[in-house]
Amino acid sequence: MRESFAEISADEHDRLHALYGPLTTAVRKLVDASIRTGVDDQVIRDAQAAIEAVTATLESRQYEGPRTLRHAVTGRPVVWADPAIGLRNAIAPPLDVQHTEDGRCWTEFTLGARYEGPPDRVHGGICALVLDHVLGEVASEGLVKPRFTGTLTLKYLRGTPLGPLRAEAWIDRTEGVKAFARGRILDAEGVTVEAEGIFVMPAWAREAG
Amino acid sequence: MRESFAEISADEHDRLHALYGPLTTAVRKLVDASIRTGVDDQVIRDAQAAIEAVTATLESRQYEGPRTLRHAVTGRPVVWADPAIGLRNAIAPPLDVQHTEDGRCWTEFTLGARYEGPPDRVHGGICALVLDHVLGEVASEGLVKPRFTGTLTLKYLRGTPLGPLRAEAWIDRTEGVKAFARGRILDAEGVTVEAEGIFVMPAWAREAG
Repeated sequence: MRESFAEISADEHDRLHALYGPLTTAVRKLVDASIRTGVDDQVIRDAQAAIEAVTATLESRQYEGPRTLRHAVTGRPVVWADPAIGLRNAIAPPLDVQHTEDGRCWTEFTLGARYEGPPDRVHGGICALVLDHVLGEVASEGLVKPRFTGTLTLKYLRGTPLGPLRAEAWIDRTEGVKAFARGRILDAEGVTVEAEGIFVMPAWAREAG
Repeated sequence: MRESFAEISADEHDRLHALYGPLTTAVRKLVDASIRTGVDDQVIRDAQAAIEAVTATLESRQYEGPRTLRHAVTGRPVVWADPAIGLRNAIAPPLDVQHTEDGRCWTEFTLGARYEGPPDRVHGGICALVLDHVLGEVASEGLVKPRFTGTLTLKYLRGTPLGPLRAEAWIDRTEGVKAFARGRILDAEGVTVEAEGIFVMPAWAREAG
């Protein structure tokens, strides 16, 4: 069963990826710079005015097409607005989630200053965002089957350092409309956070399944 | 027991709040605009160049002072870089967490497009970020006592709509170095997500307690 998303051709996908990727990378660096800057007040005010001017040009025409597209070649959904994986969302690191043939998924990513909670450590809620997402991806077979988070349990074994990290998820078992997923975040020394989640197929999708 | 943070005077706090708040608000609007824009390719490229130029001016001098300050009048920590509550972090909505005299805390906030997972719904991982933070705040008595997340369990009752929301947290009980916190996210119709968390005082803080 698949939801019916509009298709995007591989060429158009690559063209837009090359256009929006660098824009969002620039916004991510601005988010970092605005956290750390120590410039004079007038420079801050000038920066604010310049940012507002850029925003006005971007807002002069809104994208009106479908929110989620399906890649014509891979068949995977293209969710560029998502706050965990979205190419176009500067909140997202973004995670680039890989799916293996045996149904697991994993992603390697780097978290910097804008995700910091305790000094030099990733905010616990950001670890939760990453794990909710990768468990949800594995439970929905790459966002192809509609499955929503029912419960999510996170066990924080130790602080997760800022820097290069890995997240993994797999399906432990399925029972009817429920998928039981497990996952973890790791740094170079091993596991920092473990997660278990129950993901449920929504009622509207069951008859079509 | 309190950690020893450098103090910031009320006047200096207010001056910096008035300077950095509007800068970060401008960056948040840019994050939204870059998700939704449908302008021509050349306008995107010009926007990217303008953003990179602003970032360069902000990076010309980094803030080198202490990362966390203590407000001289309220005694509360000032954590402007935090991805949940940080005035200076464009990832944060930001949450403005209120503490009541009976030890509960609550916050009212609005989540828009940049926090969207399923259509018109908050990403489940963003709900987790909000709940991890408010439970952590109540367990640490407003980030005053060092307490780190041990486990966090989230129960998603239904989708959380984008728009105005409320989060609440309170201490269910404490046992030695552990605080058992509970909380929830609500929209106008009632509870959307429930949370339970166990927060632990780190070993380095126990002897000083």
